[in-house]
Amino acid sequence: MFTGLSAFPLTPLTETGIDETAFAALVGRLAAAGVDSIGALGSTGSYAYLTREERARAARIAVEHGERTPVIVGIGALRTRHVLEVAEDAQNAGASGVLLAPMSYQPLTEDDVFGLFEDVTAHLSVPLVVYDNPRTTHFTFTDELYARVAELPRVSSVKIPGVPADPAAARARVQRLRQILPEAVTVGVSGDGLAATGLNAGCDAWFSVIAGTFPEPALTITRAAQSGDAERARAESRRLQPLWDLFAQYGSLRVVAEAAAHIGLTSPHSLPLPLRGLEAEERARVVEVLEDLRPRA
Amino acid sequence: MFTGLSAFPLTPLTETGIDETAFAALVGRLAAAGVDSIGALGSTGSYAYLTREERARAARIAVEHGERTPVIVGIGALRTRHVLEVAEDAQNAGASGVLLAPMSYQPLTEDDVFGLFEDVTAHLSVPLVVYDNPRTTHFTFTDELYARVAELPRVSSVKIPGVPADPAAARARVQRLRQILPEAVTVGVSGDGLAATGLNAGCDAWFSVIAGTFPEPALTITRAAQSGDAERARAESRRLQPLWDLFAQYGSLRVVAEAAAHIGLTSPHSLPLPLRGLEAEERARVVEVLEDLRPRA
Repeated sequence: MFTGLSAFPLTPLTETGIDETAFAALVGRLAAAGVDSIGALGSTGSYAYLTREERARAARIAVEHGERTPVIVGIGALRTRHVLEVAEDAQNAGASGVLLAPMSYQPLTEDDVFGLFEDVTAHLSVPLVVYDNPRTTHFTFTDELYARVAELPRVSSVKIPGVPADPAAARARVQRLRQILPEAVTVGVSGDGLAATGLNAGCDAWFSVIAGTFPEPALTITRAAQSGDAERARAESRRLQPLWDLFAQYGSLRVVAEAAAHIGLTSPHSLPLPLRGLEAEERARVVEVLEDLRPRA
Repeated sequence: MFTGLSAFPLTPLTETGIDETAFAALVGRLAAAGVDSIGALGSTGSYAYLTREERARAARIAVEHGERTPVIVGIGALRTRHVLEVAEDAQNAGASGVLLAPMSYQPLTEDDVFGLFEDVTAHLSVPLVVYDNPRTTHFTFTDELYARVAELPRVSSVKIPGVPADPAAARARVQRLRQILPEAVTVGVSGDGLAATGLNAGCDAWFSVIAGTFPEPALTITRAAQSGDAERARAESRRLQPLWDLFAQYGSLRVVAEAAAHIGLTSPHSLPLPLRGLEAEERARVVEVLEDLRPRA
């Protein structure tokens, strides 16, 4: 489950809650495209902004509309007790795995984070992905902490925030991770712009933002890398460079939200306030990039 | 209300919820000591970790046990809708004011934050303190944004994260804030170690962590500065320097939680997991500093 392409859909919101029709369609689209897993309620799925009830409901919709595709559900929360509650709900909804980022308000110590993973994995019956995303959690894992956490039961994958852009350095980084992690624990790259580099360097999985809205080009990259065609993976990633540039400039969430609205997958303004959509000029730039890529995206 | 000493108590937790007896006693102690306001559910009060129900309950307890002392209630949340809910609850509980920090998961833009304050103040009937705490929110206000937000209705004070350590630079900074803020909006310093410097430099208020657990030394500093005895304020702050050093090293929350437990105000382990208490050695250091300060703290 924690290999290949894991696609993270948006959780589109309305004034009053989840836009269930749009969310079900987004998930169904990913299953139909043949992604290897669906990452519901990731950062792209706005898990951090939703109530327990909304998260439970979204998990059920994802499992139902994901059909036979395994669904991984994000269970992060600021407080351990709330993580345990949403983990229980995700499992009851039929999640095949869960994804846990150490969200923070007060800065966390390594021992806080280890304790969190220890407490959560002790109550879990499905596999867990360790989610390292310093941009949103403001916590940075050390390799030592990766190794400690990866020894815990149920830990099956580590979602790393990226790899060095240089292919040789990326290979060295992935090799280093292999040395410190148990053999059964997979390494998944995120940060879409470096995913081809990561997969070519030996990452087992790509936890992908773009695949949640546009699965095809992400599948092209993943299948090429998996078959050893590093150049094809690189070329497709290069073609998408204007999109990676927008991600870097505005954040991937706001860009894919805009893109999903543009192609009619969601209503406009589907992000949770206080997150506003892009300004008119920024939106125009996203549309322009999408139109340029359209032949194959 | 937004002048003088505002004391921020802990919200001690048990395995199952708020330790209501301990919290009521903490609040009552502040009212009895004669602080100018009580800041319930600030960062020190762990607002970010509590459920809506727990926050509503804590707000009621604070108002009840704060007696005639005005109570300011923290209303921050990641999602605007949840801020509006807890703001409603705080007002229904009898809060005299509210305190709003732009909590973040996805990085926020200036327009996101302005929009948040615009939406919240439009629904508010009590005064609001703008709470700037980059260490926990990972959002940094510009002076331009301070000025924009301070023009909104109900905005009555800005809680700044600190002032420069140099007294002349601190004075210049406070003068600059006076220039950009409407006259009726007060400036409150936080970051306890620089509070005497801030008050001496002309800040109207001190939003204080230490005062939530040890109101007396904070009152000594505040009253001295208010009466123009800058040297006395400085001297008392200097006496407490070992405590400020511990705050810098371990974070003020973990230190005051340890201190409150040591003097019997709370049970040990009253912080919300994943936040762990200090290690044995760190705890011993806190106790040592407290014992040294005891004659007057």
